[in-house]
Amino acid sequence: MSKFMDVHRGMVGITDQQLREAHAADTAIQDEEGVTFEHAWADPDDGVVYCLSEAPNADAVQRIHQRAGHPADEIHPVPLTV
Amino acid sequence: MSKFMDVHRGMVGITDQQLREAHAADTAIQDEEGVTFEHAWADPDDGVVYCLSEAPNADAVQRIHQRAGHPADEIHPVPLTV
Repeated sequence: MSKFMDVHRGMVGITDQQLREAHAADTAIQDEEGVTFEHAWADPDDGVVYCLSEAPNADAVQRIHQRAGHPADEIHPVPLTV
Repeated sequence: MSKFMDVHRGMVGITDQQLREAHAADTAIQDEEGVTFEHAWADPDDGVVYCLSEAPNADAVQRIHQRAGHPADEIHPVPLTV
């Protein structure tokens, strides 16, 4: 399992409720790909959302995000953490 | 105090030790601006580093990063967290 940081753009104006619903849509199905979405942070002004997950690979992260209706624009493995 | 996610690019090949030293350089002086750097995640292949902090404003985050020798390329307030 590895850590990933993925990035969603074009989310200008996202609300707290929308972020929670999007995260819930991910976590509802994440077990099917062995993914654990740990946190998400949103900047509604610039429309950027960052998601931190633990997953077998980046494709698994993307499959969950796609099925939940919000594919990521970037998915970065982040093997280094402090 | 607010949460911020900042992004550093061009860090291709960054090592675990370099990430720890960079983070330590930030935390050594962060109190002078009322900033708390909580975590950093690095993708050495794409050369991207993400830093999560709590700070009075984005300028304070940048002043610490600049003085520590690694100014951020982007600093996003992330008022929404899950």
